Amino acid sequence: SVMLYGVLDADIAHFSQGGLSKTMLTSSGNSGSLLGFRGTEDLGGGLSANFWLESTLLSDTGSGLGGGLTFNRRSTVSLASDFGEIRLGRDYTPSFVNHYVFDPFLLSGPGAGSNITLGGGANGVAGGNAATAVRANNSIQYLWGFNPNAIAAIGSGVYAQLMYAFPENVSGTPALGQYTGGRLGYANGPVNAAISYAQSKGTPYAADVGRGYSTYKEFNLAGSYRFGLGQLMAHVGTNNSDAAGTKYTHWGLGATINAGPGYIPIAFNSIKQNNATSDGADQIAVGYVYALSKRTVLYGTLAHIHNKNNGTYTFSGSNGGNNPGLQTAFGGGMSFGNGTGYAVGLRTSF
Amino acid sequence: SVMLYGVLDADIAHFSQGGLSKTMLTSSGNSGSLLGFRGTEDLGGGLSANFWLESTLLSDTGSGLGGGLTFNRRSTVSLASDFGEIRLGRDYTPSFVNHYVFDPFLLSGPGAGSNITLGGGANGVAGGNAATAVRANNSIQYLWGFNPNAIAAIGSGVYAQLMYAFPENVSGTPALGQYTGGRLGYANGPVNAAISYAQSKGTPYAADVGRGYSTYKEFNLAGSYRFGLGQLMAHVGTNNSDAAGTKYTHWGLGATINAGPGYIPIAFNSIKQNNATSDGADQIAVGYVYALSKRTVLYGTLAHIHNKNNGTYTFSGSNGGNNPGLQTAFGGGMSFGNGTGYAVGLRTSF
Amino acid sequence: SVMLYGVLDADIAHFSQGGLSKTMLTSSGNSGSLLGFRGTEDLGGGLSANFWLESTLLSDTGSGLGGGLTFNRRSTVSLASDFGEIRLGRDYTPSFVNHYVFDPFLLSGPGAGSNITLGGGANGVAGGNAATAVRANNSIQYLWGFNPNAIAAIGSGVYAQLMYAFPENVSGTPALGQYTGGRLGYANGPVNAAISYAQSKGTPYAADVGRGYSTYKEFNLAGSYRFGLGQLMAHVGTNNSDAAGTKYTHWGLGATINAGPGYIPIAFNSIKQNNATSDGADQIAVGYVYALSKRTVLYGTLAHIHNKNNGTYTFSGSNGGNNPGLQTAFGGGMSFGNGTGYAVGLRTSF
Repeated sequence: SVMLYGVLDADIAHFSQGGLSKTMLTSSGNSGSLLGFRGTEDLGGGLSANFWLESTLLSDTGSGLGGGLTFNRRSTVSLASDFGEIRLGRDYTPSFVNHYVFDPFLLSGPGAGSNITLGGGANGVAGGNAATAVRANNSIQYLWGFNPNAIAAIGSGVYAQLMYAFPENVSGTPALGQYTGGRLGYANGPVNAAISYAQSKGTPYAADVGRGYSTYKEFNLAGSYRFGLGQLMAHVGTNNSDAAGTKYTHWGLGATINAGPGYIPIAFNSIKQNNATSDGADQIAVGYVYALSKRTVLYGTLAHIHNKNNGTYTFSGSNGGNNPGLQTAFGGGMSFGNGTGYAVGLRTSF
Repeated sequence: SVMLYGVLDADIAHFSQGGLSKTMLTSSGNSGSLLGFRGTEDLGGGLSANFWLESTLLSDTGSGLGGGLTFNRRSTVSLASDFGEIRLGRDYTPSFVNHYVFDPFLLSGPGAGSNITLGGGANGVAGGNAATAVRANNSIQYLWGFNPNAIAAIGSGVYAQLMYAFPENVSGTPALGQYTGGRLGYANGPVNAAISYAQSKGTPYAADVGRGYSTYKEFNLAGSYRFGLGQLMAHVGTNNSDAAGTKYTHWGLGATINAGPGYIPIAFNSIKQNNATSDGADQIAVGYVYALSKRTVLYGTLAHIHNKNNGTYTFSGSNGGNNPGLQTAFGGGMSFGNGTGYAVGLRTSF
Repeated sequence: SVMLYGVLDADIAHFSQGGLSKTMLTSSGNSGSLLGFRGTEDLGGGLSANFWLESTLLSDTGSGLGGGLTFNRRSTVSLASDFGEIRLGRDYTPSFVNHYVFDPFLLSGPGAGSNITLGGGANGVAGGNAATAVRANNSIQYLWGFNPNAIAAIGSGVYAQLMYAFPENVSGTPALGQYTGGRLGYANGPVNAAISYAQSKGTPYAADVGRGYSTYKEFNLAGSYRFGLGQLMAHVGTNNSDAAGTKYTHWGLGATINAGPGYIPIAFNSIKQNNATSDGADQIAVGYVYALSKRTVLYGTLAHIHNKNNGTYTFSGSNGGNNPGLQTAFGGGMSFGNGTGYAVGLRTSF
């Protein structure tokens, strides 16, 4: 049994930063648009075979990320039993998941927490560690406390995920793309909290060019609490390498507040680098998500980024289609200045 | 509810022009091959959420247009109500639709009217206005008189569509790809007629290089009348920019004549440019489409292009896979000469 | 009626050859991963319209072969009747099919017979004849003795397939990609045997550069016999051009032996070139395929390649994702040395 599913999101967004601006139709104001196929075969005795294929879809142009459609969001085949799941292929890295699960904006649109927590530095989605900052190819993963094939924990206590991604380098060459990481959490009733740590090998800093890679280290801790009015969220984390001045420390607070047939997401995120100029940024964002049905919403979001010192944080987009590209107009080593973004759109799931 | 659908067309075609020739398997002799996913969610109260994803498919090689599959034919998400539909994404431009709806060959195969009406000049599918001559990315559209998600008008009176496509340029740079256009029509019983007008910004003529774009203007008017024997069609139109000698005037007549378990499409198209040499071309085409079922047909088409003065019109193909590429062998500024094309093929829909 | 189907395979594989090694997650240890859509429309009177779209899927990264997804494995539309099937598009060439059907490893994983029979030379999957060594674009095919749309013969006696692939060259230019070939077989009860021959035009050897192509000729003969313990297989074949020293002669023996809830594939393949140094290689492979269900298996494979003289045979992969790329580290004209590969993985079909 195969399930064909998808999310189509389209919004009109305006971004301004450092004296430049852009108006766009984007594909991920509330959620990254996607198309996927997934399925499970019950093998008996608690055993199941599972697969999951999910493509980024730029709804504004019909393209995939960078051209033709690929299952770049997830491509996995797995065997699950009462003893957990062994999952092979391309998937979110464990150290990324906390960025996503505990962001009231789910990393989409102008308010995406990843503008701050995964932006601006070598450890982020556009930096030297990009190959495994969000997802990893060629990975083998063990999951405990998740339903077969699932992204979210079951919610009946402890859960864990461990991943190793093969670098697939020829012997004697740098193991670029290698990833080793884990995540340990607890989810029960209103509470969900998780800690993660990972080491990976990516594009080298100047100090590491000789050996062909730098080692990137990520730690984060995050949690949420659901109550009558909605949900509270908080996270802290660090990204660093052994090179001097490459440690980024970030934290954030957020909430989703039930309001009529929908909810208000609100979040504050902050980051600071330990370099000579103590570069960093703060972001504050608020929105409203109005449910037309369980599958379809209208939404609006407003976000502001305040770069500190030579901070280079901007609206970096969750779907490759929500990045205004304003930063390409700024010179090297200078702050991007403050920025404002807003979006109004429609999202439907099927 | 998602609907998976498609059209697979394959034909053996032969083209000759200017002393050169080519025999091909093409993917669009009767209809562009395609694969798509679409669906509608009823939100109650006359409201619905809709999506439509449709990819060009070159059935002769399995590829998409220019490589991997993308939903380049259409990628839209929309909200429809009794007050019309707001549709976001990539779609046909309103000024293109009359080219398609009122061509007995539906712009496919050797007889495609677009060889003439969208060929040979800067305003056509291969010219400076190519980004929006057929479809536009990043568009917002309002439709009235169409069923939700539909391409064709309901047919109970007046219909209208208005589109604006965001150029997504950074402030201070040329707004290439911007499109503003509309179409107004009337369909009822045997009658269908529509008028459209659009302005867009595309690759500049020499006179406009300084500001980085030329403004392209398109007007067209077309209609059809259905009666016992079949359907009659006619169209006129102009494409022009403000640069001297860039106005193209085209017109055409066509019919589909019921004949046994199928029909005979026949069409004449003509175009003339207002440049010093009054370049232009005429095309005449005839075919037979034999229905094996409601979804599957066998067909044959024969077409002839007569280039006038330095006309550079050729079989430009509806699907990227039906273009013999003969014209690349001709020098600049010279006529492509006369050409003949024929095709015999099979088309099935699912 | 459209059928959505697929195969997802993922395995951990290790390859070593000539002093180099690599560990990988691959997508084709037991079967090339793929995603497809196919269907049949019954037109009555024994007539049917059929289509088949099938994409290579690199499950380890989510990509298609070389980037975005395309239906590169097969893209056909056909008309079938009691008099056989006319199939148009991209499909396996008749001269390839015997390589696949009579290999106990079905050309997948470290033990793929194609490492030897389609490797190392200009007539193979990476050589001058690559455009049609496995599949051909733009082809028209006639099949007899096959169910509509099928790959395998019905098994009630004689079967045949004839293919011509259009080179789609402009008149006066080399007909690169042209293919003419056929296959004639007999399948009934436990017996299946087939002979094939083809001529094609591909990238020229030095001696043929003037006319722009070399003519590649392939002949092969293969058979299998099924009995209580499993199945025995054997094949012989030659690939050659008119250039001196370009004739490759290969042969092989294989078996699948029933063993518990699965089977043991085992195969020996050998090839020899008629050049001055008599280059060649032998490969021996053995595995076990354990069925968890009719659709899902666990498997392991071990293979060894012994290059003779200056042989350049290696683990060339069935899916673009199972090629360790070690050979790029070796110099021109030198042997790749001996190699060993093994893989352990999971494959599920849907």
